Amino acid sequence: MEIKKYLTQQCAVVEQALARYMLTEEGPLANHIKAMRYSLFAGGKRIRPILALAAAEALHAASTEHLFPVACALECIHTYSLIHDDLPAMDDDELRRGKPTCHVVFGEAEAILAGDGLLSFAFELLSHPDVQQGMAPDAQLRMVRTIAKAIGPVGMVGGQSLDLAAEGQAISFEHLRLIHGYKTGALITASVQAGAIFGKGDETQFAALSRYGAQIGLAFQIVDDLLDVEGTTADLGKTAGADAQRNKATYPAFFGVAKTKVMAQDAVEAALTALEIFDAKAEPLRALARYIYERNN
Amino acid sequence: MEIKKYLTQQCAVVEQALARYMLTEEGPLANHIKAMRYSLFAGGKRIRPILALAAAEALHAASTEHLFPVACALECIHTYSLIHDDLPAMDDDELRRGKPTCHVVFGEAEAILAGDGLLSFAFELLSHPDVQQGMAPDAQLRMVRTIAKAIGPVGMVGGQSLDLAAEGQAISFEHLRLIHGYKTGALITASVQAGAIFGKGDETQFAALSRYGAQIGLAFQIVDDLLDVEGTTADLGKTAGADAQRNKATYPAFFGVAKTKVMAQDAVEAALTALEIFDAKAEPLRALARYIYERNN
Repeated sequence: MEIKKYLTQQCAVVEQALARYMLTEEGPLANHIKAMRYSLFAGGKRIRPILALAAAEALHAASTEHLFPVACALECIHTYSLIHDDLPAMDDDELRRGKPTCHVVFGEAEAILAGDGLLSFAFELLSHPDVQQGMAPDAQLRMVRTIAKAIGPVGMVGGQSLDLAAEGQAISFEHLRLIHGYKTGALITASVQAGAIFGKGDETQFAALSRYGAQIGLAFQIVDDLLDVEGTTADLGKTAGADAQRNKATYPAFFGVAKTKVMAQDAVEAALTALEIFDAKAEPLRALARYIYERNN
Repeated sequence: MEIKKYLTQQCAVVEQALARYMLTEEGPLANHIKAMRYSLFAGGKRIRPILALAAAEALHAASTEHLFPVACALECIHTYSLIHDDLPAMDDDELRRGKPTCHVVFGEAEAILAGDGLLSFAFELLSHPDVQQGMAPDAQLRMVRTIAKAIGPVGMVGGQSLDLAAEGQAISFEHLRLIHGYKTGALITASVQAGAIFGKGDETQFAALSRYGAQIGLAFQIVDDLLDVEGTTADLGKTAGADAQRNKATYPAFFGVAKTKVMAQDAVEAALTALEIFDAKAEPLRALARYIYERNN
């Protein structure tokens, strides 16, 4: 399967969905909405929405267009987390996806609010009536809860808190895994799980897809660490070498580049193993797992 | 009806619910959870949860304990909004409810994350399975959506964005009303609506309770403006006179104190008129409307 072609095509699908569901810049709130849209349409790869749609397809789900609001919500959540992570009080990054970060353009106060707005709007999308055309209300509620949990205090936000606290500290590898699991793994896993719930997966299928999500989340973070060492600022669209500069614990810092690459491959292998119970409809998920290892930004 | 006694009693009910549903400080995320709990248990009046419960009771709802997760969620949302509003990049307040604000105690980064954590956790509570014991999944979804919409870009967060943009600007009274409606009115109205949905109100009842919510939201904001002029820092638990200092547009600045008081009374009257279709079970809602005018903090 041609993963690049698939990604381009699915990315276009997500862009269209975002254009349909996202608020437009009009009325008195135009500037606030502009700040949200600035970061939301800054050229993200839309990996999380694509994962949700691919997981649903792996379960032979029909009419995945009813999952579009959820796909958009996942991207809103991811974007909010980037805006807040980039704030001066946090990682203080001025560049993201090759563009000035939200607070550089709109100021710190509006960037905080743009993040808050995207997070709140995500739950408007997750509870959107359009979704009910493709899934029962109790399943939709379960999905809302799964995502809320994954991005909350014992999830993505908690992970960022741990990450900040760990900066400049000597931490154990177990602690690094914990941080990564919360900060990056939880939302990626929840994206796959959202698709699994939409696709009416049974318990075994849900567990397998959850394992897949956790493993590609891990691979994603390890590769992120590698790219920070080996990538260029131009490729990454954000400042390369920032982790080392901040004296951050990373996989390469613990194990060196060579062993870290093997660990990323192992995670991809484990993700593929988790998919063994699925048929050819899971091919996009498989290709996505391989792609995560091969990406360069 | 003795409103003070009712509020004390209902406040205790909400405190108990919060103690039950809120995360506890343990494990690696203890510090993050501590920051959230610090602001959540800083002595709030729990008006929004109490409104939700009272609205459900006005509709003769049984087993309002199944609404407790929602009540807690409303307080988490309110607390998150206060933490973010108080940030140095926003209103830069060091005092809230007589205590140092979250960022003063935990630092700016953790305060941003404590707010983010509370907002995410609120949606875990709104989609909580315990709620399904008291309402159908589609009604619960509608409630999630109502609250998400009220606190999002075209709601509370948008209102804060407009409020910041208006600081030091000459704005019209219509614009001030718009800001207040989004910033304060939307969540108060949604709290009442959450109770109305839980209580299975019909369309007429839902509309009446929505009008009630909008009017007490308005009264609440007008009184807030008045208290900033007439209250003391000790009574308020936050810095008195801050609005004038910031040259903020307020009701007293537009109309003077005397006329502003009449406007607050008018809003309370309109709220009471909206409740005319309800029986004695709506007495707490009526007493709450009157109390909002009489409060001094």
